[in-house]
Amino acid sequence: MYNFNSGPAVLPAEVLQEASEGIINFNNLGLSILEIGHRTEWFVNVLEEARSLIKELMQLNDDYEVLYLHGGATTQFMQVPINLLNEDEIASYCDNGIWGSKAIKEAKLFGNVHVACSSKDREHTYIPKELSVPQHSIYLHYTTNNTVEGTQWHFIPEAGVPLIADMSSDIFSRETSFNKYSLIYAGAQKNAGAAGVTIIVIKKDILGKVTRNIPSILNYQNHIDAKSLLNTPPVFAIYVSMLTLRWIKKEGGLSVMEKRTNERANLFYETLDTLNILEGKVDKQDRSLMNATFLAKNIELEKLFLDECKQNGIVGVKGHRSVGGLRISMYNAMPLSSVQVLCDLMKEFDKKHS
Amino acid sequence: MYNFNSGPAVLPAEVLQEASEGIINFNNLGLSILEIGHRTEWFVNVLEEARSLIKELMQLNDDYEVLYLHGGATTQFMQVPINLLNEDEIASYCDNGIWGSKAIKEAKLFGNVHVACSSKDREHTYIPKELSVPQHSIYLHYTTNNTVEGTQWHFIPEAGVPLIADMSSDIFSRETSFNKYSLIYAGAQKNAGAAGVTIIVIKKDILGKVTRNIPSILNYQNHIDAKSLLNTPPVFAIYVSMLTLRWIKKEGGLSVMEKRTNERANLFYETLDTLNILEGKVDKQDRSLMNATFLAKNIELEKLFLDECKQNGIVGVKGHRSVGGLRISMYNAMPLSSVQVLCDLMKEFDKKHS
Repeated sequence: MYNFNSGPAVLPAEVLQEASEGIINFNNLGLSILEIGHRTEWFVNVLEEARSLIKELMQLNDDYEVLYLHGGATTQFMQVPINLLNEDEIASYCDNGIWGSKAIKEAKLFGNVHVACSSKDREHTYIPKELSVPQHSIYLHYTTNNTVEGTQWHFIPEAGVPLIADMSSDIFSRETSFNKYSLIYAGAQKNAGAAGVTIIVIKKDILGKVTRNIPSILNYQNHIDAKSLLNTPPVFAIYVSMLTLRWIKKEGGLSVMEKRTNERANLFYETLDTLNILEGKVDKQDRSLMNATFLAKNIELEKLFLDECKQNGIVGVKGHRSVGGLRISMYNAMPLSSVQVLCDLMKEFDKKHS
Repeated sequence: MYNFNSGPAVLPAEVLQEASEGIINFNNLGLSILEIGHRTEWFVNVLEEARSLIKELMQLNDDYEVLYLHGGATTQFMQVPINLLNEDEIASYCDNGIWGSKAIKEAKLFGNVHVACSSKDREHTYIPKELSVPQHSIYLHYTTNNTVEGTQWHFIPEAGVPLIADMSSDIFSRETSFNKYSLIYAGAQKNAGAAGVTIIVIKKDILGKVTRNIPSILNYQNHIDAKSLLNTPPVFAIYVSMLTLRWIKKEGGLSVMEKRTNERANLFYETLDTLNILEGKVDKQDRSLMNATFLAKNIELEKLFLDECKQNGIVGVKGHRSVGGLRISMYNAMPLSSVQVLCDLMKEFDKKHS
């Protein structure tokens, strides 16, 4: 099967193999990874290796802490403002797609939101190049890659205020200056593991400034103090994430991931741009290197294309239910050869129906 | 290995086998369960089977909804009051152990808490038999089984107000009148699967009564409306829970689980009560059938006993870090033969050191 799902998505074969074995016999202990206590040395070693691999891959110093939390990125939409934004303060948000809009909605429950830029006027098919950020904003929040719309920020906005990014769908796909951010969060289920856990990277100096009583389980500081073991963590999801990070490092780290990201995206978009029946949906310069959205000339051709994909073992090509159309996702574990198979099918399809 | 961990804990061998295979090739699809989209028919079938097995095992009608949520039971400590308790209202709570105390702390952030009963006077070594519940309480909350202290409620309190229970450590271990509850929650990692997901059972008529703005991801009604697919769920943890529920049903359901629960606990406590060196910590009538806490005559003997357990492949015998001493957990997947091995060691140890 060629798996172009947007997440949960394709994982490296060796990660799957090791995870599968760990369920029967973890580290040759005669116990399953699903059965070991989360405060045993066995699991604490897994958690600490994962946390330190993230700091290493991101080249972050000890000003930062890494947490693995429950709840998905959607939980961060409220957990960020509840920890950082007082009721009478302002936070700036970029409105560039469905996830950013949801983050704005939740932030409004806790303080004032200023929209620093919006691409709503053209259905989020581009990334705005100009931002307005009041200098008393507590932070600027944006989504680095829009999984649903197929756009991606290819630059880091210079805001002059602490920067917060939802990197759920492009984390670890490229080199970037992670130390320009005060907080990064990402659901693990694209480039960093399987569904069920969220990575949070926090620059500690942004904490401790709100006056509200934060529920214990939502308080970042509590999780930092507990070394990411405040309550029973999603043990297996963290294990799979650790295996995935090990794989990234072994393959050569983020520079190699970035090279492969570019190869996959170039192959796909270069093919797409030669076709008559299928075409891209978003501004070329803002195209996502992870999630490519495109359209068939009409709805009949779209259905036909989806059918042909299915017949050829290509899955996950349908667009997000909120926007329709077609979409493929090309995360770290996606082999270039799978993209080639898809491109060949696209060319053939185009020829047949042009 | 004989695994007496308190959770994550022992799981049925056939569940582990199937979960391990599902990571390589789920349902013969040629895809891993970790790679399939959470809105595919493949995963929706898993989720729906799990939700309906819970209703079936609990014999609940359509007044109830079953959710699988992120965050662990600790998240429910705040999610319950944020959904149910207005600021000027009162909720009653039983203070019977570490988890109940934590639930009280979080509830106070959202409304008024009345302590209906407390076992604090004797370090939570018993279950109070008398409760005071103001009739204008919005609900009564209690922890059915105290994992840390080793006590368990062997009756359902009659409160005259909606009943809410944290059943994390004894769910599915016995038959009970689940329809007496308005809300039940339980981390899956003891009797209902692996760590990383929480089961919530809600009687729908208790919702919709608070006036506060609830963050979207914390609002039970949103999860009900989305059929427990509001955001990317912990796919694998739900899959393992579904396999565990299938196993419970196949083995004969809750009546069979209860029979085995009693057999294991009887064997253990009857052995314990014949010993000189080791003794139980809590009132006999309130002993937990899941988690048995006990003490050695002195700290040297405790260490020695832990060493002997380790040498004999018996793990998870150390008491919770907050209370010390010894503890073993005997969940659904624990074979009686493992308890026998432990009992034999205990008798031998007692003979040697008496």
